Amino acid sequence: MHYLSVELLHALSFRPFGEVIEAGDERHHFPINDGFAERYHDLARVDVGDGDGTVRVLVSIFRAKARSLPLPLALLERHPLGTQAFMPLSPHPYLVVVAPSDQSNEAPDTARIRCFVARPGQGVNYARGTWHHPLIALHDGSDFLVLDRGGSAAEANCDVVQLGGDEIAVPPFSYGN
Amino acid sequence: MHYLSVELLHALSFRPFGEVIEAGDERHHFPINDGFAERYHDLARVDVGDGDGTVRVLVSIFRAKARSLPLPLALLERHPLGTQAFMPLSPHPYLVVVAPSDQSNEAPDTARIRCFVARPGQGVNYARGTWHHPLIALHDGSDFLVLDRGGSAAEANCDVVQLGGDEIAVPPFSYGN
Repeated sequence: MHYLSVELLHALSFRPFGEVIEAGDERHHFPINDGFAERYHDLARVDVGDGDGTVRVLVSIFRAKARSLPLPLALLERHPLGTQAFMPLSPHPYLVVVAPSDQSNEAPDTARIRCFVARPGQGVNYARGTWHHPLIALHDGSDFLVLDRGGSAAEANCDVVQLGGDEIAVPPFSYGN
Repeated sequence: MHYLSVELLHALSFRPFGEVIEAGDERHHFPINDGFAERYHDLARVDVGDGDGTVRVLVSIFRAKARSLPLPLALLERHPLGTQAFMPLSPHPYLVVVAPSDQSNEAPDTARIRCFVARPGQGVNYARGTWHHPLIALHDGSDFLVLDRGGSAAEANCDVVQLGGDEIAVPPFSYGN
């Protein structure tokens, strides 16, 4: 069993996979509402692509159950037709597992899987076609606002690759609450 | 001074103004991710309209300062070109003040202003052209994920009507934390 390293989520290290959605001094921001709010502006590039006229940005809430660690990885998936964003609504960290494509562009490069721990207040937006593991919450009842592509149900917008499940795993680790 | 009634935010009473974004049994939901998450599906109709090719959904974070109550209302605004959604990221209630248009459709009907208190976990999506007060947080540092229209800066997407500021007010009230 190969245990992945667990990296702290940071906008720069996540850049190949999409954007980190968070407020911070290093982001473009400016006061609005007569000074009663600061706008951290344009934090994710939502791109749900084109389609048959039914395509739009969906807003949903995912209510997740906790995964147990260590977590052997059974699969990765990608959405070829659109970005997918997750913003935590609960004050709990969670995990983000992603991978670049291999040379065939048909499967993830499993030697280069990355595992990030996101702190509360940090969301992610997966760039179109980015291989990722389904949501890995660490606390039952963790809620996430999710932005993804809605369109005709006939569209194939999820590729799945099985990983075997007994070779690569997220290790147990400790991180705040 | 006329004090508004403070109503609990509910999807049905808010319906003339847009959608309430929240998980709940009465919403369409189904299990995903092999049972590790429940998807509360398609909770808001994001509509940023058309434009010159630069139009897209912006994802931003507003970090708000607390308003003091009572709060005399100085103005209302509306965005004629797109919806605007606010999802609270902090565990604090906040206020939502909205109004229908008057018969001219050029100004809010100030006799019909409504004031809702949203609990943590309840977001709102203002329908296109809905008159509303700028964000009214009750706690400093309240963060909101905001979805609105991005486009050419030359576009006029904010109508503002001054209310005078000494006639209609949100009253002081008590609601949990």
